[in-house]
Amino acid sequence: MNLSLQLLSSMLPENADAAIIISNTNRRYFTKFVSSAGYLFLTREEAYLLVDFRYGEAAKNQADGCEVITFTELGKSLEDIIKKHHVRKVMLEGSAFTVNDAEKMDKLLSSAGAESIKSSALDTLISKMRIVKTSAEVDKMITAQRITEQALTETLKLVKEGVYEKDIALELEYKMRRLGAEGISFDLIVIAGEKTSMPHGVPGENRIKPGDFITFDVGALYQGYHSDMTRTYALGFADDKQKRVYNTVFEAQKRGLEAVRSGAVCRDVDAAARDYIYQAGFEGCFGHSTGHGVGLDIHELPFVSSKSDVTLQSGMVVTVEPGIYLSGEFGVRIEDMVVVTADGCINLATLPKELIIL
Amino acid sequence: MNLSLQLLSSMLPENADAAIIISNTNRRYFTKFVSSAGYLFLTREEAYLLVDFRYGEAAKNQADGCEVITFTELGKSLEDIIKKHHVRKVMLEGSAFTVNDAEKMDKLLSSAGAESIKSSALDTLISKMRIVKTSAEVDKMITAQRITEQALTETLKLVKEGVYEKDIALELEYKMRRLGAEGISFDLIVIAGEKTSMPHGVPGENRIKPGDFITFDVGALYQGYHSDMTRTYALGFADDKQKRVYNTVFEAQKRGLEAVRSGAVCRDVDAAARDYIYQAGFEGCFGHSTGHGVGLDIHELPFVSSKSDVTLQSGMVVTVEPGIYLSGEFGVRIEDMVVVTADGCINLATLPKELIIL
Repeated sequence: MNLSLQLLSSMLPENADAAIIISNTNRRYFTKFVSSAGYLFLTREEAYLLVDFRYGEAAKNQADGCEVITFTELGKSLEDIIKKHHVRKVMLEGSAFTVNDAEKMDKLLSSAGAESIKSSALDTLISKMRIVKTSAEVDKMITAQRITEQALTETLKLVKEGVYEKDIALELEYKMRRLGAEGISFDLIVIAGEKTSMPHGVPGENRIKPGDFITFDVGALYQGYHSDMTRTYALGFADDKQKRVYNTVFEAQKRGLEAVRSGAVCRDVDAAARDYIYQAGFEGCFGHSTGHGVGLDIHELPFVSSKSDVTLQSGMVVTVEPGIYLSGEFGVRIEDMVVVTADGCINLATLPKELIIL
Repeated sequence: MNLSLQLLSSMLPENADAAIIISNTNRRYFTKFVSSAGYLFLTREEAYLLVDFRYGEAAKNQADGCEVITFTELGKSLEDIIKKHHVRKVMLEGSAFTVNDAEKMDKLLSSAGAESIKSSALDTLISKMRIVKTSAEVDKMITAQRITEQALTETLKLVKEGVYEKDIALELEYKMRRLGAEGISFDLIVIAGEKTSMPHGVPGENRIKPGDFITFDVGALYQGYHSDMTRTYALGFADDKQKRVYNTVFEAQKRGLEAVRSGAVCRDVDAAARDYIYQAGFEGCFGHSTGHGVGLDIHELPFVSSKSDVTLQSGMVVTVEPGIYLSGEFGVRIEDMVVVTADGCINLATLPKELIIL
């Protein structure tokens, strides 16, 4: 077993003899092997990766820290492991097994004399391991961020009066992919005008016009890792109210970033940004959390929210993304992704944040 | 309630008072409303769509056949419905609820005096409803197919010696999106040369060379509905063995299509294609089923396999896609998507199937 598998094995609760992991992200996290299927079966003594014929050869060459078994009958291979290691109770990855998957797995386990533990407990253990990133993980997120920034910079040239939001979103995605992204981190948000008042607006057949704010919430996927960044631009001009709102968010984001350091509590980071916005007269106009962890998932621990008492540690990667949303008018959000350090953070985003009039 | 909701409600087993549906596809199927979240709560008397603030207004305008509730606290809204309709037992959509989702839902149900039935039974009922398409559904699949064909036709011009598989796949996806596709039906397969011997090869940094077969397994998503088509082309030339294999698959696919009609059993359609391939000397070289249903999911009922005793009915949409895969050499697959009719089928694919040398 490699170190991460040993660690998880040692963390299994007393009543569990083994665990089965089936999500693409966690399978990849523990074995380094990339696939869209496969069962990582972790016992207290040994880890096994069970794959079908499509992945057998590649898994044998690439999977780290586990014995690869190419199964023809899953039940038979599970039974061999269960018998060998005297497994009785198996934790299932509750965020990845559907009710139907678990029903099928229960049948296989039961014919081998074992039974499942169906809960979120295994996910909780794994989330806690994944919350601090290695430098190899951060490197991939830096690459994802560089791709995002280059693609966004090139795409901004296309933002002109009369262009559709959805066409810009498509061009941006295409450029990211051409630059080496495996995909996008989430459905890219490119929204303009009144739609910017919706934190999760969907790009549509809405033509951009002078005086619009245009919000880009964008990220690329690189070697399994995500990036996440938001910038809000204006086309042609911005009026005084737009400028005041923009600068309030800009300052709030700065204060949020300044609060990030190892030892800080998430809710205090949230408050640093939120209090500034509320005190500037925009209470009730910032309806989401200040940030979230990023890694193999686009949203993962820690959540930088008013309810989170998680203490930040060096190596965590979080976003800081306050916003102000004025229903029926416009909205502004500014977001960076940062790595927590002993005395602050390293900002992975490098694009400017002062208001840019395109 | 609309007709589809009434039908499902009437099909609920005796021991169930209600059902909760959370998958994007089934929520859309029953309510016509498009969203990435929301709980469709179906009782015997009434259907409710519970959405959060993001979707409240749109759902009220667009959701069909159900009462829309914009919830602030999900548990409270569930409790109101449960009390009003005296609900005790609630079936969960087992293919969509993860173990963790179900755990959370159980807590909410239990505080309202109800409990869940966790099984695949609800999915089975819904799959049986979705298996026959309405003409409105087929219309969307025809549009998806037209987009796919136009994009593929334009993309073929880019297939030249030295071009990377993955670049062609990206251009093809981009063209589909420009033509109005919401997305791709699955990760597009564009593979060349020896890689064509893998039914699910992934486009990579593999340069196409003269004498290669190039397999395109491609589909677009349009208004929630998928298309699915495979064509295999040769670049520059094809040798006698390639031609023999190609023509064997071509004839097998023709025989498969000829076997499709209302009243035919799926395993017989599979056999019509499979027997021809095996008798031509390629036993063991066709390791997958002959086809599958297509609709809101890319793979759905009925499965056209040697194990399926489902009888085809008018309005089902299935693929017919036999192949021959010669490990270390090359492979060929040809796939059309068809609508079953009383005396045969309507082929939604129109691109030619004779071997084309690019």
